[in-house]
Amino acid sequence: MSTPLIEFWFEFASNYSYLSVMRIEQEAARHGVSVQWRPFLLGPIFQSFGWSTSPFVLQPWKTEYVWRDMARQCRKYGLAWQVPSTFPRATVLPARVALLGSGQPWMADFCRQVMQLNFASDRDISSAACVSEALTGLRLPADQILAEAQAEPNKLRLRAQTELARTKGIFGAPTFFVGEEMFWGNDRLDDALAYAAASKPSS
Amino acid sequence: MSTPLIEFWFEFASNYSYLSVMRIEQEAARHGVSVQWRPFLLGPIFQSFGWSTSPFVLQPWKTEYVWRDMARQCRKYGLAWQVPSTFPRATVLPARVALLGSGQPWMADFCRQVMQLNFASDRDISSAACVSEALTGLRLPADQILAEAQAEPNKLRLRAQTELARTKGIFGAPTFFVGEEMFWGNDRLDDALAYAAASKPSS
Repeated sequence: MSTPLIEFWFEFASNYSYLSVMRIEQEAARHGVSVQWRPFLLGPIFQSFGWSTSPFVLQPWKTEYVWRDMARQCRKYGLAWQVPSTFPRATVLPARVALLGSGQPWMADFCRQVMQLNFASDRDISSAACVSEALTGLRLPADQILAEAQAEPNKLRLRAQTELARTKGIFGAPTFFVGEEMFWGNDRLDDALAYAAASKPSS
Repeated sequence: MSTPLIEFWFEFASNYSYLSVMRIEQEAARHGVSVQWRPFLLGPIFQSFGWSTSPFVLQPWKTEYVWRDMARQCRKYGLAWQVPSTFPRATVLPARVALLGSGQPWMADFCRQVMQLNFASDRDISSAACVSEALTGLRLPADQILAEAQAEPNKLRLRAQTELARTKGIFGAPTFFVGEEMFWGNDRLDDALAYAAASKPSS
């Protein structure tokens, strides 16, 4: 028996991705749905729109609200929260590691750890020291994984994954796909899971 | 005994405002919360950001998704839905009438009627004929209300209401206020009502 699938496209710099990374495994299990983790980079997608950075920065009238909303959402979900002192953070390194980890048993733990470092502990997740700490905390061979993550084939894979996100019509994160059906934002995670659970499983 | 209040800022051209207009009275009643209807115009606020129209139009990569999302949301809430052939529609006239109607017993019915004309029947809600039809359908004196709505004092009131929205930090619609606490988007209506219900009623 195959279970229904949800594709979970996320970016470590994205605060609303933080909410979904922290709760998707538990919510998906409740719906009997499997999660395919799809890390990607939003930067090149925003650049394709002519944006130099996050719309939360480019639209300063929205920034204060977003942080207030995040504080409330994190309280609702029981998550720690701190406005990051750098936003959005560079995430190429953790994204490369996560791409290596996709499908590995440590993937979800690693992603939750990186997200908490960024949005609960205000740590610089772009640094090798920080990513290494996250890996070591999971008893993984950090040096070996970092070397493999930074090798040319994996760099190219992340570029291809981001390009795939763009061609699928992704314009923000988190984004969920159930088959061809796209759902944007943590606010749609529950709808997406319900849709997946009601769909015929792909065999 | 005073009941807790929610301020409901909405714009007839806004598709996500449609969702909230259709369901707020029922949801608020469930929470024991009273609704203060606050019609305003998004156009001048978008202009203050340097935008000539809705971001759903200015960001064409998002348009198709928004209509897909609306179709799903309307199905979820049991609402009729049709992509409007003109978007966003000019809404000065229905907003002026709604401003007159704020606090009147016919306010909620009128707003639901205008929203359905726009988003379920694809009618031109900027026209006097259409607004008149909505009023007449509610057995209201359409000619008299339209004349009062178009009189100078009411025009100035709508301008002041829109300016108040801007100074309150509103950047989109629907937006809810419970005291100083701002909630943006139909996706936050339930959180806002729960927050209102848990707050001390203003006396």
